[in-house]
Amino acid sequence: MLKPVPLDEAGAWLAGHAAALRAEEVASGDAAGRVLAAPVKAAADHPRVPTAAVDGFALDAEASTGASDYNPLPFSVSHGDEGTAAPNRAWPVVSGQAVPGGADAVLPIEEAALRGRVLDVHAPVASGDHVIPAGRETRGGADLMPAGRVLRPADIALLLELGVSRVPVVRRPRAGIIVVRRDVPDGGGPMVRALVTRDGGIGAEPMYPGDEGLAGALAGCTDDLVLVIGGSGPGTNDRAAGALEEAGELAFRGVAISPGETTTVGRMGSAPVIVLPGPSLAALFAYDMVAGPALRRFAGRGPVLPYGTRSAVLDRKIASGLGRLECCRVRVSGDRAEPLAVSDNRTLSTAVHADGFVLVPEQSEGFAAGAEVTVHLYDQRY
Amino acid sequence: MLKPVPLDEAGAWLAGHAAALRAEEVASGDAAGRVLAAPVKAAADHPRVPTAAVDGFALDAEASTGASDYNPLPFSVSHGDEGTAAPNRAWPVVSGQAVPGGADAVLPIEEAALRGRVLDVHAPVASGDHVIPAGRETRGGADLMPAGRVLRPADIALLLELGVSRVPVVRRPRAGIIVVRRDVPDGGGPMVRALVTRDGGIGAEPMYPGDEGLAGALAGCTDDLVLVIGGSGPGTNDRAAGALEEAGELAFRGVAISPGETTTVGRMGSAPVIVLPGPSLAALFAYDMVAGPALRRFAGRGPVLPYGTRSAVLDRKIASGLGRLECCRVRVSGDRAEPLAVSDNRTLSTAVHADGFVLVPEQSEGFAAGAEVTVHLYDQRY
Repeated sequence: MLKPVPLDEAGAWLAGHAAALRAEEVASGDAAGRVLAAPVKAAADHPRVPTAAVDGFALDAEASTGASDYNPLPFSVSHGDEGTAAPNRAWPVVSGQAVPGGADAVLPIEEAALRGRVLDVHAPVASGDHVIPAGRETRGGADLMPAGRVLRPADIALLLELGVSRVPVVRRPRAGIIVVRRDVPDGGGPMVRALVTRDGGIGAEPMYPGDEGLAGALAGCTDDLVLVIGGSGPGTNDRAAGALEEAGELAFRGVAISPGETTTVGRMGSAPVIVLPGPSLAALFAYDMVAGPALRRFAGRGPVLPYGTRSAVLDRKIASGLGRLECCRVRVSGDRAEPLAVSDNRTLSTAVHADGFVLVPEQSEGFAAGAEVTVHLYDQRY
Repeated sequence: MLKPVPLDEAGAWLAGHAAALRAEEVASGDAAGRVLAAPVKAAADHPRVPTAAVDGFALDAEASTGASDYNPLPFSVSHGDEGTAAPNRAWPVVSGQAVPGGADAVLPIEEAALRGRVLDVHAPVASGDHVIPAGRETRGGADLMPAGRVLRPADIALLLELGVSRVPVVRRPRAGIIVVRRDVPDGGGPMVRALVTRDGGIGAEPMYPGDEGLAGALAGCTDDLVLVIGGSGPGTNDRAAGALEEAGELAFRGVAISPGETTTVGRMGSAPVIVLPGPSLAALFAYDMVAGPALRRFAGRGPVLPYGTRSAVLDRKIASGLGRLECCRVRVSGDRAEPLAVSDNRTLSTAVHADGFVLVPEQSEGFAAGAEVTVHLYDQRY
């Protein structure tokens, strides 16, 4: 029979069985979206030498003293190092290029008056103008990025530009997916696979072993985590808990969330097994509340929900039962949230038509109309 | 020379050259994150017949009238259709299963008292209890999802369960990436490729043809959109505008954004070409403001920024020049935003260390300390 445990208890049990996986090295250019397994420090100053911030002409600022429209000072334009020691030289530079040794400022090309190989300077420039000093981007030895950072596109560029061509990232967890619900066609398997991808894992092709083959399929899994869809309920055909007990270890039957109260948890060796309810709405919520946090721990990400949030004022009240965490789908318009579905409506289309959901905690009986609530936004970007 | 156009003007020109690409059909199970190219309607009622909402026993509610703890009414448990006409039959059902023809309610298994093949009913049940009526999920012919929707994992499940096994989605735009900046190693190419992936496109392997090979590389591109990195500036070696003029059409040199003012736009045949500045911070902002919206139009997504937003109060003032849209990177802590970098600091590390950025409009000279601003959050989830 079901003996639902509080979500916190389920989360704590799973946290004890889901530590971040070991690191693997990947090319920095391919690391966007991956999770750093160790902090990255800068090996050296960057830039290593003073660098032009704009396109223009590098020159010695002191030699421009006294320049004005009435007294333009001529600089001779040179390429390369020839005659570095000569006074009043100007070197064409492009943004990002090292400033030659004899120069300490850059005159932007827009302000330059060029006559053949002679540059007329019409105003004095100050030392350091339009020059990026050595070490401005980062100092050698400085902390660049902490372990656990989900690498952004800009991070990739910085790593490469600092010469960090490979980085240690957390291996992506593999999740086995076993579907035992009886619907034809199955929507839950592909949905859960997409959720696993979203959370930084690799979802295996769903397996459909049937009730009889479930224990064997569980025993054959070599994944970091196994997600079973269906077979969690108390019905005569719901054999997931029994199969888990037979093939591995059953930790608990039932988690106090709604929908999703039949969610069942255990393990096969070191791999947590989470049995999600067959109906897809319940599978979605149970994934987000129970399985997702475990998968994200394996992936080196935080266990927090991967949805953006916003505040909204409820159009109508939400009534909820005590003793379970409830998911109320809402539609958001402006600052208002309209509850689309309370617990008696468990159709998947409510989640499809919703912009997000409101969580009603275990110890709450709901929220009054006009209450300000936090909406978790289903991510349009996926 | 640079003649920066307002961002609106650049956006309008690109919008005129970037319509959503044609549709392609994919398996619904693989369509998460893709953009629907046409609305999807439900072909039929779902569920097609009344369905059990819980595991339990289906029965005729009327036959339970008068049941109580003192007067339990016996129902005989049967499987299949044999004896459908007989009174007081009960059929074991699991959640999601069709309710047999002789039944109109489901008694949850937790409330059932079973003696062998006899089910004792201790309280009357009402017609419709724990039964999902036909068409509750959706009605045949109803609008399920509009064109332009970015398909979520739950959408995938609903489509499959309604029998929609394939869906028309917008083809993912292919972006060519040509790097002409002179830095070794290059960070901009991989960064831009990751940004293209984020926005629903397919970024080609970056090409490094050198200044001399640029016009040829442009002419050889067969992509939907071409992104050139570097060579946009007014310097003597910045040949992207010339190459574009030679191989295709130059629309304008310069966009009034900072950083990124040298961004150059044109086209090769029907493919827009956007030349992003070489320095990666400027390339990032120019991508987000100029290239990203065009790519997302091709991809059937809106041109809006793909970052979440939040309000925050500025810790310090932001000073900005008139006449250009400026990007100020900020760090967010609680409700406060601390400006990390104003226009004179163009180091990429400011974007890496920032939580997001504040946009200062063309007609604004900035924001005072204490002002409430909108922060665009760099997406940790990528």
